[in-house]
Amino acid sequence: MNKRLIVKLAGSVLLVEGALLFLPLIVSLISGGHDWRAFALSIVIAVAVGAVLSQLHPKDDTLSAREGFAVVSLSWLLVSFFGSLPFFFSGAVPSLLDCFFETVSGFTTTGATILTNVEALPRGLLLWRSLTHWAGGMGVLVLSLAVIPKMGGRSIYLMRAESSGPSTEKLVPRVGKTAKILYELYIGMSLILLVTLLLCGVNWYDSLIHTFGAAGTGGFSNYNASVAQLNNPAAEIVLGVFMVLFGVNFAIYYHVLHRNWNALRQGSEWKLYLVIVAVSTLLIAANILPDPKFHGRFSQALRASFFQVSSIITTTGYATEDFNLWPQFSRTLLVALMLIGGCAGSTAGGLKVIRIQLLFKSVVRDIRKTVHPRSINVIKLDGRALDERLISGVQGYFFAAILIVVLSALLVSLDNFSFETTVTAVVATFFNIGPGLGLVGPAGNFAIFSPLSKVVLTLCMLLGRLEIFPILMLAAPSAWER
Amino acid sequence: MNKRLIVKLAGSVLLVEGALLFLPLIVSLISGGHDWRAFALSIVIAVAVGAVLSQLHPKDDTLSAREGFAVVSLSWLLVSFFGSLPFFFSGAVPSLLDCFFETVSGFTTTGATILTNVEALPRGLLLWRSLTHWAGGMGVLVLSLAVIPKMGGRSIYLMRAESSGPSTEKLVPRVGKTAKILYELYIGMSLILLVTLLLCGVNWYDSLIHTFGAAGTGGFSNYNASVAQLNNPAAEIVLGVFMVLFGVNFAIYYHVLHRNWNALRQGSEWKLYLVIVAVSTLLIAANILPDPKFHGRFSQALRASFFQVSSIITTTGYATEDFNLWPQFSRTLLVALMLIGGCAGSTAGGLKVIRIQLLFKSVVRDIRKTVHPRSINVIKLDGRALDERLISGVQGYFFAAILIVVLSALLVSLDNFSFETTVTAVVATFFNIGPGLGLVGPAGNFAIFSPLSKVVLTLCMLLGRLEIFPILMLAAPSAWER
Repeated sequence: MNKRLIVKLAGSVLLVEGALLFLPLIVSLISGGHDWRAFALSIVIAVAVGAVLSQLHPKDDTLSAREGFAVVSLSWLLVSFFGSLPFFFSGAVPSLLDCFFETVSGFTTTGATILTNVEALPRGLLLWRSLTHWAGGMGVLVLSLAVIPKMGGRSIYLMRAESSGPSTEKLVPRVGKTAKILYELYIGMSLILLVTLLLCGVNWYDSLIHTFGAAGTGGFSNYNASVAQLNNPAAEIVLGVFMVLFGVNFAIYYHVLHRNWNALRQGSEWKLYLVIVAVSTLLIAANILPDPKFHGRFSQALRASFFQVSSIITTTGYATEDFNLWPQFSRTLLVALMLIGGCAGSTAGGLKVIRIQLLFKSVVRDIRKTVHPRSINVIKLDGRALDERLISGVQGYFFAAILIVVLSALLVSLDNFSFETTVTAVVATFFNIGPGLGLVGPAGNFAIFSPLSKVVLTLCMLLGRLEIFPILMLAAPSAWER
Repeated sequence: MNKRLIVKLAGSVLLVEGALLFLPLIVSLISGGHDWRAFALSIVIAVAVGAVLSQLHPKDDTLSAREGFAVVSLSWLLVSFFGSLPFFFSGAVPSLLDCFFETVSGFTTTGATILTNVEALPRGLLLWRSLTHWAGGMGVLVLSLAVIPKMGGRSIYLMRAESSGPSTEKLVPRVGKTAKILYELYIGMSLILLVTLLLCGVNWYDSLIHTFGAAGTGGFSNYNASVAQLNNPAAEIVLGVFMVLFGVNFAIYYHVLHRNWNALRQGSEWKLYLVIVAVSTLLIAANILPDPKFHGRFSQALRASFFQVSSIITTTGYATEDFNLWPQFSRTLLVALMLIGGCAGSTAGGLKVIRIQLLFKSVVRDIRKTVHPRSINVIKLDGRALDERLISGVQGYFFAAILIVVLSALLVSLDNFSFETTVTAVVATFFNIGPGLGLVGPAGNFAIFSPLSKVVLTLCMLLGRLEIFPILMLAAPSAWER
């Protein structure tokens, strides 16, 4: 492995983080918060370390696939560590482990919190917390590729390791340009959301916080009661619609802008994703309708249901209702949606709809093989025959995910919380959702867990966000051999 | 499909069931139970239908793989239906759906019951309930192959479709002979268990019931308190050891008898299985030791832990303790053991240890591929390179299993029981375990569910026992084409 190159690139990412930290610093100064010193100090440290590391001179600057994975894993660990410093320096969160948990939860767009009262935090810190969602959603490395010209030509491997889903499409031949297009789309859509929220009558600060949280499909809010606190039905619907939109593969928006209708027509993932959203919304609305809260009005139940489905399938985790109190069918369906997740190449978590499609097709093929053993069966998606290695990779990913969930649940169960709390805490962190059910439901938080469980759940968030292999690879001794 | 041949073979299996029904009839007559008429009537009906069906003359009597699957699926539906008649005719269980649930639970060796008070049932019916475990454990078709000479030459496909695990080894070239050897081993081991229980001071009837339940790894008892009622520490240990033994691939015992030590040394599945049993037993014993019940004595905690681990990993479901009340770590570990299950080619359920081995190896390969993209990676087990189709089949099976569990949990959740009860009820039936946690824990039962849930759970038991594809195949229209 070209260790110098790996460290140098991770250092560049730290410089980008240092730049991002200026936004909360400014907000802190404007709002007269006591946390501006914490930001100033964190910026100095991050930029200093980043500057030193990025001065390294590797002998060779080509990047292999495994080196790409190593850069991504290392960068995520570094930005999470340095990103947790403002929480620590400000004294808002006394335990460094808790600071790290909160920051990893931010960058991985999980949205699980160890804070029992978020409203006690100063405005700068709350903004930073939400900004980590926004940066982590599309990817900190993709952001670095987009803004640092020298990194531009580097490698598709960096983008591939950080993007979600089984395959990453290059929109244009150059990687740096692709990263720039993705971030332009991301910024454009975020701006539209921000303006629409402002038009709904939400104030500047709340709009910014919830734009970051929805765009990154993260879910941190500046209110304990989450989006319910806004008490603004129009904003609720807007957020619901935009969460769904941020759960779609961003390549789709590129095709829309370039009037590439053929690519849209052929893509089946985004269509299936929208069908799942629509069907689940209707089913849950019918299931919760008898609740006296909705006064028997289907429209109200539908609004509550749509917001929750949108928030959960995109693994955002915002809540307008305590769905922990909903009937078991709705709760179970929400857990199933958590597992499915959004589309590949979006900011959403979960297994991703395309993986479910591929796995489903492989089962259908197995049945067909049982019936007609000698038939030749190629799995096709969107008219193209798929490589067997891709299918096998998705199947392996699925087992690895379930294995990690089971092993993590075993470790977390040592805290002796209920089966529901234990299992959904692991699922909610691994799939980057945020709230689970039981004590970690929308009205609860992750402060209840022991340090061991917090370490396990933090690792789950990273494994989930980077889709397992980059992190596991770091633990494989042969990866470090020359 | 050769429909005549399929129906004819299923008819022969009904004749074998008619013969099996004589045992409870005799017990009923001896014990002076009122249920003898129900058995007599059921025998007449089963034999009559079986005789008519087995008189069919198919034009061709070779059997393809899919026809083998069809015979197995049809036979299981028929023996379950006709096997439920004694419960219905005796009036002991008024609802035919409940009778069918109980019988499917018996043959599939699940051991989930809708009876709230098993002790109220007459002796003949309780014996029949346990006998279904014994016959279903090694397989009703394998039994038919062993006892009906004409079926003997038939086809490896019949055995393969009914045996558990991804591949079935023919012990000797002829299928009928292989079936006979398996049943000889099965009967021999069952007799040893029976005699040992008698030597421990358990009475004849209880010994017979618990031999059937342990050998088939089913779990029905004639007592509401299950094995705890025997109040016999020696019998507890004996049952614990034998459940573990019945969870081992029966080919292993054949190799032992033939001093084929090489085959033993090469087989890694049975070794890993025993390691999992040992490690889990120690972990749970340490976890439950603080319970005042065990007076701080490790030996007592170890005995309770071993029995439960043995009962759960083999998916028997017998209980000496209400493990529902144990600490969460033990409960979560037990759920993980449920998922793993015993060895392929045993009477145990679950995913099977060999599938876990293969899936694990495929993940390791994926990591290796990430590190060294151009390396050639063949998955080896026990020194032999494995066919990619086998691995892909296991991966597909795993996804199909999880998919069925999630969809079934959604339907069962309409009954609005807790997350724990809903999910573990589905897992406990699909993996043929019996008790789950919560309301379906060892002290609970399945009478609480609605008819829809009972239908779903019954289907789960069949899908789990026959390993999904034979049942799903019946639903594929193209399977019925010429």
